[in-house]
Amino acid sequence: MKLNYKIIFHFLGLLLLFNGGFMLLSALVSLLYKDGVTFQLFLAGIFTLIAGLLAMVFTRHHKKEMNKREGYIVVSFGWVIMALSGTLPYVLTESIPNFTNAFFETMSGFTTTGASILNDIEAVPKGVLFWRSLTHWIGGMGIIVLAIAILPLLGIGGMQLFAAEAPGPSADKLHPRITDTAKRLWLIYFGYTAAETLLLSVAGMSFFDAINHSLCTLSTGGFSTKNASVAYWNGEPIIQYIIILFMFLAGTNFVLSYFAFKGKVQKIINDEEFKLYFKFIGVFTIIAAVIIYFRADISASSIVHPMVWGEAESAFRHSLFQVLAIITTTGFVTADYTVWTPFLMVFFFGLMFLGGSAGSTSGGVKVVRHIILIKNSFLEFKRTLHPNAILPVRYNKRAISGNIVFNILGFFILYMLSFIIGALGFSMFEIDFKSAIGLAASTLGNVGPALGDYGPVNNYSALPALAQWWASFLMLIGRLELFTVLILFTPFFWRDR
Amino acid sequence: MKLNYKIIFHFLGLLLLFNGGFMLLSALVSLLYKDGVTFQLFLAGIFTLIAGLLAMVFTRHHKKEMNKREGYIVVSFGWVIMALSGTLPYVLTESIPNFTNAFFETMSGFTTTGASILNDIEAVPKGVLFWRSLTHWIGGMGIIVLAIAILPLLGIGGMQLFAAEAPGPSADKLHPRITDTAKRLWLIYFGYTAAETLLLSVAGMSFFDAINHSLCTLSTGGFSTKNASVAYWNGEPIIQYIIILFMFLAGTNFVLSYFAFKGKVQKIINDEEFKLYFKFIGVFTIIAAVIIYFRADISASSIVHPMVWGEAESAFRHSLFQVLAIITTTGFVTADYTVWTPFLMVFFFGLMFLGGSAGSTSGGVKVVRHIILIKNSFLEFKRTLHPNAILPVRYNKRAISGNIVFNILGFFILYMLSFIIGALGFSMFEIDFKSAIGLAASTLGNVGPALGDYGPVNNYSALPALAQWWASFLMLIGRLELFTVLILFTPFFWRDR
Ligand SMILES: [K+]
Ligand SMILES: [K+]
Repeated sequence: MKLNYKIIFHFLGLLLLFNGGFMLLSALVSLLYKDGVTFQLFLAGIFTLIAGLLAMVFTRHHKKEMNKREGYIVVSFGWVIMALSGTLPYVLTESIPNFTNAFFETMSGFTTTGASILNDIEAVPKGVLFWRSLTHWIGGMGIIVLAIAILPLLGIGGMQLFAAEAPGPSADKLHPRITDTAKRLWLIYFGYTAAETLLLSVAGMSFFDAINHSLCTLSTGGFSTKNASVAYWNGEPIIQYIIILFMFLAGTNFVLSYFAFKGKVQKIINDEEFKLYFKFIGVFTIIAAVIIYFRADISASSIVHPMVWGEAESAFRHSLFQVLAIITTTGFVTADYTVWTPFLMVFFFGLMFLGGSAGSTSGGVKVVRHIILIKNSFLEFKRTLHPNAILPVRYNKRAISGNIVFNILGFFILYMLSFIIGALGFSMFEIDFKSAIGLAASTLGNVGPALGDYGPVNNYSALPALAQWWASFLMLIGRLELFTVLILFTPFFWRDR
Repeated sequence: MKLNYKIIFHFLGLLLLFNGGFMLLSALVSLLYKDGVTFQLFLAGIFTLIAGLLAMVFTRHHKKEMNKREGYIVVSFGWVIMALSGTLPYVLTESIPNFTNAFFETMSGFTTTGASILNDIEAVPKGVLFWRSLTHWIGGMGIIVLAIAILPLLGIGGMQLFAAEAPGPSADKLHPRITDTAKRLWLIYFGYTAAETLLLSVAGMSFFDAINHSLCTLSTGGFSTKNASVAYWNGEPIIQYIIILFMFLAGTNFVLSYFAFKGKVQKIINDEEFKLYFKFIGVFTIIAAVIIYFRADISASSIVHPMVWGEAESAFRHSLFQVLAIITTTGFVTADYTVWTPFLMVFFFGLMFLGGSAGSTSGGVKVVRHIILIKNSFLEFKRTLHPNAILPVRYNKRAISGNIVFNILGFFILYMLSFIIGALGFSMFEIDFKSAIGLAASTLGNVGPALGDYGPVNNYSALPALAQWWASFLMLIGRLELFTVLILFTPFFWRDR
């Protein structure tokens, strides 16, 4: 089957239109705050719109249905074209004059990683900061539609598992219309963002900070409008608890939120992934809180930790916040987990491989896959003892086909392989062991903060240019569940049939 | 089926007899070298022999055949009883007066890890040093019989794959008689050890050093009789090339050596694992050698590097030696790979997960499993594109059953899980990130040298007592392919049927 490039370009054009529209929205924000870069942002939007329109007009006579191979290309190049065009607001306003830096920041945005090369975030014009937060939010929208509607059809890494539960009509072919399902979940995504903005404003954040942090929370992105990230509000626990709540929701399968609004609470309580996600957060928070309270030397950190509600509450809050920030791969910072204790550093490094729920905007391996991996390992012991017994893995009370289990095992192995190759890549730039290992885990999992020189109190500006491209690549493949992008590098993808 | 403890104890008694015999051999060495501890070593041997005899006499009316569950117990507890009784020569001679230290050193010996807590090896009496090397060599013998005759029957981690190729009669039940196959391979093992001893002696090593290093090479153990390990002979390239040759052989499937002696060269050339093992060594050596030659700062190391045959040869030799030492998990040291360049540190860390060939004495994941993992990942891409195609993994031109692939994928995931839990364990003792990560990889893979505070120029004496027990546990489960030991911790193992 020959690839139909027209339908591919048509879709990429549509994405550019979409992106251009959001740039114009940033220009509007710029106008409201009179930050002096309105014209540049307007120009960026217009350029992007025109490019998108041209692409769509020239490819208007495309065939109506997309096949799987075109699907992989649209998804992978879609993210790249978003990141490429998304550099315009940074470059034209000269907020980030260097193209490599700008591309890194945009890719970090659209992949909801939240790693930043900006040294002084607070000096950046408000319109540009808003655009920066929007890249997260748009990326998050993309992830939802991918997870619920596209990746299951493309057969990526066991995504079929939970998508079966998704509401709305199910299609068997990639259809050029965004499915009904995605629209319902986007409504929830939008609603949560609005709710968080409102609550943060009420709690005392400025409206601008509130909306930006909300855009970056629901997308599990982690960009902040403050140099100190959310640690800026270390003296205001209520603000941090609000963000904690919404990080938790952002890391939950949005389909479950949909059920919640439909009153189907039983569906949520019975969901195995949700239960384990909840338990993980609970157990890890307690472990970290106890260690922080009794062992950690908070004064070793450059971050100020006023104990407004007492030492115990502070230990609990920062533990809960950081556990959620890493598990949901949001990456907001209220404390430096690398200076607490040696144990907690390895602990948080390990959490980077966890990830939130499938069907959420979080990155990483994700809880559902860990469930399958753990159950299968356990069964493997039984199979060893009784080689002839047929022992299928069960998830949400249903036996799972061997193919999907295979798919998930394969995903995990590819993830580990990408991690070690990722670390090797970084270490080529004279980056030390700990930092290289941390960078690989953090970029691949779309977390944001890493370890060592790229820890929570640092940013990525010291990363050499080539290493920034390497990081961008890792963020991209991590975000798109590895297979979607890496399949383009297999020889048979292009010569097949 | 009830467990038959008589047959279990009978076998453990047999192992003690075996161990006691080797202790008497050490006493003989002690006598020859007049090192003053002959009586203590003799006593250790007699104690062990009596314990073994008593166990065997009391259980002489055991049933004739062992079932699988008894097999797991005999193997796991066999290694533990060897390590426990193996402490006697250290404790009675007061070479290692502390029991924890002695147990660590013995477990490190029998698991062929080669991590040592001895600060001044050269001050230890020769008889005890010989015993120390023997623990490696005995461990290696155990591994060969395990890999060829026992683990495949126990269904551990895809060991069925290559065992099918092994020579000699194949049994379907665990038979209380060591198979014919094992005896043939032990003969090769013994022959190689004698050959290396001879060559090293001819090349100028003292006979004592030669035999000890040979015992520790063929078992991929890595204990040395010198404080500086093999770096002691950095000025004598021929000695190091001889060790290189035998490390290579020790990391090769002993079944292939058997074929070589039978003149069946075609079998070796066609063996996929051997080909990849060879390619790995070649490619990794070139990469490391080029970097060492052009980039590394040798002077940063505390190890002396006289360039007797020029700088290029030195870079090549140390690269080849260290690549082989890590891949075959021998762990001999001629240079400190942690100070070459940041890239090479991550590189050698990654190599710790490779392992040599299955059916060799090396530890780690092993090349055959990597072949299956890589092929399956590649096929996973094809399966993603063509979900209905049936694409079995092929190894040595035969399609492999899905069960074995599953087994191997499960093994790898369990290995990674053990690694991260291992690192978390070490980090509890205030061991820094790099050292904890390195210790987990090195002990689990039975390598020996790790990273950071436990790198090639350090030893394990600084490890806290509890951490030494943790390390011993990791060495044990790594050596016994995880499942053999960990299955004893599953609740169904004990209540089953
Ligand atoms: K993030
Ligand atoms: K070793």
